[in-house]
Amino acid sequence: MAVYTDVAADELAEFLSRYDIGDLLSYKGIAEGVENSNFLVHTTAGSFFLTLYEKRVAVKDLPFFLGLMAHLAGHGIVCPQPVKTLDGETLGTLAGKPAAIIDFLEGVWPRKPNAAHCAAVGQALAKLHLAGRDFGMRRANALSVPGWRPLFDQAASRADNLQHGLRAFMSDELDHLEKFWPRHLPEGVIHADLFPDNVLFLGEKLSGLIDFYFACNDILAYDVAICLNAWCFESDHSFNVTKARAFLNAYGRERQLSTGEQTALPLLARGAALRILLTRLVDWFNVPPGAMVKPKDPLEYVRKLRFQQGVSSMRDYGVTPSGVVA
Amino acid sequence: MAVYTDVAADELAEFLSRYDIGDLLSYKGIAEGVENSNFLVHTTAGSFFLTLYEKRVAVKDLPFFLGLMAHLAGHGIVCPQPVKTLDGETLGTLAGKPAAIIDFLEGVWPRKPNAAHCAAVGQALAKLHLAGRDFGMRRANALSVPGWRPLFDQAASRADNLQHGLRAFMSDELDHLEKFWPRHLPEGVIHADLFPDNVLFLGEKLSGLIDFYFACNDILAYDVAICLNAWCFESDHSFNVTKARAFLNAYGRERQLSTGEQTALPLLARGAALRILLTRLVDWFNVPPGAMVKPKDPLEYVRKLRFQQGVSSMRDYGVTPSGVVA
Repeated sequence: MAVYTDVAADELAEFLSRYDIGDLLSYKGIAEGVENSNFLVHTTAGSFFLTLYEKRVAVKDLPFFLGLMAHLAGHGIVCPQPVKTLDGETLGTLAGKPAAIIDFLEGVWPRKPNAAHCAAVGQALAKLHLAGRDFGMRRANALSVPGWRPLFDQAASRADNLQHGLRAFMSDELDHLEKFWPRHLPEGVIHADLFPDNVLFLGEKLSGLIDFYFACNDILAYDVAICLNAWCFESDHSFNVTKARAFLNAYGRERQLSTGEQTALPLLARGAALRILLTRLVDWFNVPPGAMVKPKDPLEYVRKLRFQQGVSSMRDYGVTPSGVVA
Repeated sequence: MAVYTDVAADELAEFLSRYDIGDLLSYKGIAEGVENSNFLVHTTAGSFFLTLYEKRVAVKDLPFFLGLMAHLAGHGIVCPQPVKTLDGETLGTLAGKPAAIIDFLEGVWPRKPNAAHCAAVGQALAKLHLAGRDFGMRRANALSVPGWRPLFDQAASRADNLQHGLRAFMSDELDHLEKFWPRHLPEGVIHADLFPDNVLFLGEKLSGLIDFYFACNDILAYDVAICLNAWCFESDHSFNVTKARAFLNAYGRERQLSTGEQTALPLLARGAALRILLTRLVDWFNVPPGAMVKPKDPLEYVRKLRFQQGVSSMRDYGVTPSGVVA
């Protein structure tokens, strides 16, 4: 979790008075998220999320995130909507931080996703990509290939403390990806962080996508690659072809991957794995005081990267490239 | 907060199926509490608290805590009630830990208590003491005077790192309290931790007392002393006589303090301050990994202890000892 900023009841009540969402009943800091302080707020009108944006989120990006959530919700994607104040604003200030009230979505995230979960995520991701096409704002991906070398430089000197040879392994991979990263693939709005803890389910049914604070414009198939890594490995780090097939087929039914995207997918998945490995490694060596989170294991993504290095085509993901429109 | 134990959605749903409280909609780890893992659970029947008891709480004490909450609620004290399973149990096992479902009470705790809050707490504390009289179970206070010297021994060697002279200051105080601690004062069930974050309000109205996991049998006036320290000082560490008067008068209207209790109150308040100072000091030097809490400032209670050392009678708390039944 994260609750970096304490909020007093009277200042929260004052903040809420700018909205038409009833009177404050209770609020609890939530042990989730790393970037922001999050509270679950009960009012006489229902449940809401309160997010205080801490310094790791750039204030200039907030209109993109909040605008995207409103845009997607307007296009049938179930995601939290920012609540507007009586003056029509979605962003305010609380306890000295930029702050927003967001719909609270019921649902639980799957600790052990099964193939049905993976299929639901594939479908939702494709719908998100389609719905994002006519979103008017743009945000560059600060954590795409050009952003990886600075992360590598931060973590490199200590990498071998965690695993012998890790520095050279990452260095070689980074060289390869910088050289061969695909260009001219279809781009659009991507979620960029659609891990299981950002997808809510009620029973078997997907009830919402959350946490759009990495969303940006980038290669659409890169988002697919991120999900392959996040959803289709077992806890023993083995790759589950059944889940990958369910995920990719469900995605393809909504938005068919072009031949170029399919050819590039293994390389994109290597990039997606290195990106997570690098940020986890930086976090591992830099747990902020008071962050109240345990850093995630970087080595999980070393294993995933090694797997992706061995993938030669979509067949290794359990799907046949045939029948696909170029 | 504390969320020491991760709970998977399917095991929680299974756990909840033993209760008649509807289906799981969502659950969020709460950034509160130090001793336990707490979750706010939404079901189709409403909101509930899920507490997983971590090792700092002795399993053998749980029937006392849960029984007391049920007893007090049955005597008009607004406090969370443990919810019974279909089999009539209040304690189960989840994720390998003892676990209970507790009513969720709406309300917010006052960051800056005013005199009206203090009066409400005084009244509620006295009612709690009266309601506890016919509670059938007993639990010794593990953190009463005999428990302080082991805490002192744990923290003493490092105390002067925090403040020069702190070790000797505490040692002298401990000697004094061990020698002069009162006997034969009225005893009963005390809350023992009724700090502002354990008292909920909706507007000006007290909406509930929470967190009974330090409750025990001890001198009733010791509970009064704990509250004097916790509620009647300003954030600049000055003592607020108006708040103390409001608190003590409201307490006295429900349960009059005897002459013996009044005479002993300053000494009890010294003990209450030393007790908090010692546990905060031990916590300060022993933040458990993954605890996700910032330890509280021990020095706040050095200042409170020094104030209490200078108190000679109830007059220093803003009330006259006259008119009190001996």
